[in-house]
Amino acid sequence: MQEARPQRIDQRSPAQLRGLSLTPDFTAAALGSVLIATGRTRVLCTASLEPRTPKWLAHGGWITAEYAMLPGATSPRGRREASGRSKEIQRLIGRSLRAGVDLAKLVGPDGGLSIVCDCDVIEADGGTRTAAVTGAWVALEIALRKLVASDRLATHPGLGPVAAVSVGIVAPGGADGAEADPVAMLDLCYEEDSRAHVDLNVVMRGGRPGALSPDGRPGLVEVQGTGERGDFSRAQLDRMLDLAEAGIVELMAAQQAALNQVGV
Amino acid sequence: MQEARPQRIDQRSPAQLRGLSLTPDFTAAALGSVLIATGRTRVLCTASLEPRTPKWLAHGGWITAEYAMLPGATSPRGRREASGRSKEIQRLIGRSLRAGVDLAKLVGPDGGLSIVCDCDVIEADGGTRTAAVTGAWVALEIALRKLVASDRLATHPGLGPVAAVSVGIVAPGGADGAEADPVAMLDLCYEEDSRAHVDLNVVMRGGRPGALSPDGRPGLVEVQGTGERGDFSRAQLDRMLDLAEAGIVELMAAQQAALNQVGV
Amino acid sequence: MQEARPQRIDQRSPAQLRGLSLTPDFTAAALGSVLIATGRTRVLCTASLEPRTPKWLAHGGWITAEYAMLPGATSPRGRREASGRSKEIQRLIGRSLRAGVDLAKLVGPDGGLSIVCDCDVIEADGGTRTAAVTGAWVALEIALRKLVASDRLATHPGLGPVAAVSVGIVAPGGADGAEADPVAMLDLCYEEDSRAHVDLNVVMRGGRPGALSPDGRPGLVEVQGTGERGDFSRAQLDRMLDLAEAGIVELMAAQQAALNQVGV
Amino acid sequence: MQEARPQRIDQRSPAQLRGLSLTPDFTAAALGSVLIATGRTRVLCTASLEPRTPKWLAHGGWITAEYAMLPGATSPRGRREASGRSKEIQRLIGRSLRAGVDLAKLVGPDGGLSIVCDCDVIEADGGTRTAAVTGAWVALEIALRKLVASDRLATHPGLGPVAAVSVGIVAPGGADGAEADPVAMLDLCYEEDSRAHVDLNVVMRGGRPGALSPDGRPGLVEVQGTGERGDFSRAQLDRMLDLAEAGIVELMAAQQAALNQVGV
Amino acid sequence: MQEARPQRIDQRSPAQLRGLSLTPDFTAAALGSVLIATGRTRVLCTASLEPRTPKWLAHGGWITAEYAMLPGATSPRGRREASGRSKEIQRLIGRSLRAGVDLAKLVGPDGGLSIVCDCDVIEADGGTRTAAVTGAWVALEIALRKLVASDRLATHPGLGPVAAVSVGIVAPGGADGAEADPVAMLDLCYEEDSRAHVDLNVVMRGGRPGALSPDGRPGLVEVQGTGERGDFSRAQLDRMLDLAEAGIVELMAAQQAALNQVGV
Amino acid sequence: MQEARPQRIDQRSPAQLRGLSLTPDFTAAALGSVLIATGRTRVLCTASLEPRTPKWLAHGGWITAEYAMLPGATSPRGRREASGRSKEIQRLIGRSLRAGVDLAKLVGPDGGLSIVCDCDVIEADGGTRTAAVTGAWVALEIALRKLVASDRLATHPGLGPVAAVSVGIVAPGGADGAEADPVAMLDLCYEEDSRAHVDLNVVMRGGRPGALSPDGRPGLVEVQGTGERGDFSRAQLDRMLDLAEAGIVELMAAQQAALNQVGV
Repeated sequence: MQEARPQRIDQRSPAQLRGLSLTPDFTAAALGSVLIATGRTRVLCTASLEPRTPKWLAHGGWITAEYAMLPGATSPRGRREASGRSKEIQRLIGRSLRAGVDLAKLVGPDGGLSIVCDCDVIEADGGTRTAAVTGAWVALEIALRKLVASDRLATHPGLGPVAAVSVGIVAPGGADGAEADPVAMLDLCYEEDSRAHVDLNVVMRGGRPGALSPDGRPGLVEVQGTGERGDFSRAQLDRMLDLAEAGIVELMAAQQAALNQVGV
Repeated sequence: MQEARPQRIDQRSPAQLRGLSLTPDFTAAALGSVLIATGRTRVLCTASLEPRTPKWLAHGGWITAEYAMLPGATSPRGRREASGRSKEIQRLIGRSLRAGVDLAKLVGPDGGLSIVCDCDVIEADGGTRTAAVTGAWVALEIALRKLVASDRLATHPGLGPVAAVSVGIVAPGGADGAEADPVAMLDLCYEEDSRAHVDLNVVMRGGRPGALSPDGRPGLVEVQGTGERGDFSRAQLDRMLDLAEAGIVELMAAQQAALNQVGV
Repeated sequence: MQEARPQRIDQRSPAQLRGLSLTPDFTAAALGSVLIATGRTRVLCTASLEPRTPKWLAHGGWITAEYAMLPGATSPRGRREASGRSKEIQRLIGRSLRAGVDLAKLVGPDGGLSIVCDCDVIEADGGTRTAAVTGAWVALEIALRKLVASDRLATHPGLGPVAAVSVGIVAPGGADGAEADPVAMLDLCYEEDSRAHVDLNVVMRGGRPGALSPDGRPGLVEVQGTGERGDFSRAQLDRMLDLAEAGIVELMAAQQAALNQVGV
Repeated sequence: MQEARPQRIDQRSPAQLRGLSLTPDFTAAALGSVLIATGRTRVLCTASLEPRTPKWLAHGGWITAEYAMLPGATSPRGRREASGRSKEIQRLIGRSLRAGVDLAKLVGPDGGLSIVCDCDVIEADGGTRTAAVTGAWVALEIALRKLVASDRLATHPGLGPVAAVSVGIVAPGGADGAEADPVAMLDLCYEEDSRAHVDLNVVMRGGRPGALSPDGRPGLVEVQGTGERGDFSRAQLDRMLDLAEAGIVELMAAQQAALNQVGV
Repeated sequence: MQEARPQRIDQRSPAQLRGLSLTPDFTAAALGSVLIATGRTRVLCTASLEPRTPKWLAHGGWITAEYAMLPGATSPRGRREASGRSKEIQRLIGRSLRAGVDLAKLVGPDGGLSIVCDCDVIEADGGTRTAAVTGAWVALEIALRKLVASDRLATHPGLGPVAAVSVGIVAPGGADGAEADPVAMLDLCYEEDSRAHVDLNVVMRGGRPGALSPDGRPGLVEVQGTGERGDFSRAQLDRMLDLAEAGIVELMAAQQAALNQVGV
Repeated sequence: MQEARPQRIDQRSPAQLRGLSLTPDFTAAALGSVLIATGRTRVLCTASLEPRTPKWLAHGGWITAEYAMLPGATSPRGRREASGRSKEIQRLIGRSLRAGVDLAKLVGPDGGLSIVCDCDVIEADGGTRTAAVTGAWVALEIALRKLVASDRLATHPGLGPVAAVSVGIVAPGGADGAEADPVAMLDLCYEEDSRAHVDLNVVMRGGRPGALSPDGRPGLVEVQGTGERGDFSRAQLDRMLDLAEAGIVELMAAQQAALNQVGV
């Protein structure tokens, strides 16, 4: 009976992702690019080849990410300068993408390659960092395929798709303004995120075609959870991780569908 | 006969603009927004209301601009930090937009209003600063109309449309790699811009409906010309200004058409 | 039998914390201070009262943290400038400490109070961020007790102790240089951390005396896990969380013992 | 009759330059130096040899400029930090000076040479950027002559003198405080500049002795015009360019006279 | 007999100052200004009134200094950014100037006044910081006199002239390249400074007319000595201080002579 | 009789140092380390080997220092950013340490060595810069001895111990709040320093065992004196230098005692 009334401000059920679209090759200057939209959140992800690897890298290639929010992506307008928050997010994106690539194989005829994935938030409505991971992996994969196709890479160095989603413990707002008991919800929009008791970002890596893990399930790459209004229990954590895994399986299917549109 | 062979690398005639599109309301967070595309150059322009005017402003409202290029907008990838070039461009955009508004009337019930126009280049193929001016004016106009519609402005403070275009003296490349005599060309793409002998950016302001200047022509707001390979003559300057004016009249028609799509 | 040979480079068992000491009132200038040592990792934590709360804070008080590593804390010497890593860590410490305090009650006779907890790493051997959380909470608690004792706070705003520990999946190094199967380990030193397959930082909040949660167990406040060499499973995550909870219960006992030495 | 009453606050006629002096070799440390004074505006220009050319330069030499205003050059006192305005001006000066030199020939026995022209405004009363161009060219020319004299350059790489002036459309202030119709004026002082309807900076390059352009007139190198109080017409632009050219011819004569004093 | 051969590279005797000139009112924008030249070292000093005193200042007025070297003041060219050395020097100048003024009396009709003394080195040949102190005091004194003359100060707050000089223990270079025994020398030029065994900067304050100290001698305000090639003895320190005092008495006479030229 | 009543707020006589302790090997990561405490002032000094010498250094080795105050070292809390004051102090420490070492001999098998001495103030109660010099020399000496013991240096490059102390002219505060006549005092605490008429920091270098200067006295390395409330006389300077020398002889004995505890 409880499920009869809409659980969420946008009428989704707790385990439902927002409307999702991935537009590959949104721009042509970068080697790979995709515009990812999840609900009203939109992030432009590009993957560019850099001429050289970091000085401290002894061998293999390297992948980094940069994350920024366009000032007009939020209301009120944000500031253009990179904040501590941005730096933290781009470190997360970079680690996540590197988990999807065998860096020892990211080497071309003239030595290690370096790829920079830029994630620029065009419009922000919650979940920008997880959308950035999901989109940036597609941009990166397009770039890697082009490098293989043009013989700048001998073998594709990919270790499986990487995608991310946010989950949380949120009290659904009732029609009368009262808050119901908080429940676990998938893919929070900004309004939900700002009311969340717990906020958890989950990054997972899927198996490669023909090389799935024994149980066929994606594995965890990053788990970042914060109790925003006090602490949370192991049982709540488990419930959120269940939701996240199901959502990420859906996201990985969408990533695959987008890549199928691309001619490489 | 000379016109029989294509004059330009993209087959345009010297006086022809690149393919142009203006997508108003491209994002929803900012008060006004437009995605402008001229050829492969694309700029996302948003107009956001700021809570306060600059401290040094004694009365009236104020308009500023920020300009940045996304790192993935160029190949090779650019750097995220604002350069001296970016600062110079955003000062130009800000001055141009202010020429289109009676700042003394940019005042709401609670005092002077401040509007920031962000111009973020998503893909760069020459002419980004002039595309930014042309697009930002549309985003600004949408914002002003919304402010009037919601009674935050008593009267529309606009003084007429503002648009900009680049012109140059460029040697058309022949099929045999030899350069022909340089001629004046409208709306340079990157390839032409990098070969230009002279590069001129022109910003003009159109008349308000019912308040046109005696000759019905738009007036000059900014003229910035540089001899990239030596000096240039007054006659060359005149030829370029002629081309620019004709192009800007076309751009202003496109601005008007885009505004007609918007429901304010 | 397996336990007969030393599991870890410092002879600890997998579930064993490093040697721990908390020296309260290590310095006298700040309102609260403690020197925390866990193995060779040492962090000086101070809690200082700031005259004013952040501008954006409408009511209540506020707590922030700053984290830095002295250049001589590592070999080779580190650099003095705050890195993205430092900013990320101090945001984690700040969130964790705020989870232990009812900020609405952090208000003195003249308005909201602001407390800054500085965590300066004097010597680094892994686990500096979790040692900083555990130590900073003690410095903060001393400061809060002094504020209550001197009537600058009407009631103690604490919501329970906050402590943190790192856990990981690490392959124990055998005498012959070969790596054994990776196992979950508590409180990683630097050598273990740099070999870890998974690295997880866990922050928990204990119950207040007389106000424990139904099951008497501390609750999760932050969970940050990263697969450093590929992904990890839900089962591995569970094993690590079990170790972390047991370790944190021990740390909270040591926090209490240290506070009992202090005359407030 | 109209000319009977003083047109300008300093009694000049509209087409008259301010009192001008160029003191070459004002300092001895730099390779070339000049103190330029135009009215109360004074700029110290030095040209220094740098040991290396920019990394991105494949061949030939390079010339850059730096522009700054001493804090005490204005009342109220300015700030020492370089502003966006300063960056924009020094880019203009650098472009202008490079237009006067064949960079491919700026090569010494050990490779390409790099020259930095520093323009430091000692006192500011309008027109500092154009005075900087005019003065910096003299300092640069002295430096180039010394390089030729000392065999560090095989041939003089100069392409002709470069000089600059400001022009504007300004309403002359009447004795009764009323403003007369705005007219075009040459070499604006600060008071005129701040009242100008249009402000135009013009940089021109003269012919080399024995290598004049067919019409013997200097050519345009930079044109930067801004409508400060609305737009302006092509006719107004033409009138301003006429004034500028006449002024620049005078300035180039003064540059030549100053160089004749120098013993290289 | 010993004096028969030149002691110093510029033929001065050990106790002789370099040629000195003070040009008051060198610029007109600042309230007070002077160009000081000692040998080839030239510093432009201006004193500007600031609208407000520092926030932390409870009562009275305040005086600060800024010191910078123009890039072209040295060969090779210096960098424009303020170094640690510049900051240290401007702190010294500021302290020295404040010693010459009763800050409690630096108060106008509307409250405390703040004066900034800018010291910009136009050409550097050693002793720039002491020249800056000596020159800045004259600029400051002119400014104070103008403030008294225009009734913005009720009484002159001066406590006596402040001047500075460098002394050192330097080995005179012989004609044969051998170094003679080091001796104490006054007012070192760059060449001497770079060979000095000890370098000492001395700032002193003179008595006010009619209010001299009992012994009629100026008092020490700052003493900064460094052994550049090992340590030095109390006897050497005494000899240097004797030279410095004699030199500063001369400098104070020149300050007075310069002020006598000024019409306030 | 006058000596019967306590002269100073902490009951010391004018010529008495504060309680002093030097804890060598306080941390283990850096090559050398010491915690120095003088009264309530505590500074952690470490000496770290850097892989390379500065680019401008043609031969030999190099020694630099960094100085910072932990934010919690003072009340109210300080700011973490390096100030001009910090930069000035670390330049002083670096110069002082270099005076104690023959840099030409600071060369290992693979070339010149570079040592960075970090001085981090843990608690501040006056005299932090002089405590930093005294402590840093011990940390440096430990590091040098370890380098000799491990054959990374062929010979010990030391030129004798370096130590520093502050002295001042301070008016002792009477019980009735009145200030007595100012007298010279050794090793000022913060309270005394803030009331001082003159503040003088003195750095001296002692003789090497078996290589003392003829008179057996340490020599001056740095003298930095400031009249904080007006000027001071040569006689006052002499009295302060006498006190400083006696204090430094005591400090050097404590340095030697601390080094005797260390096993190198």
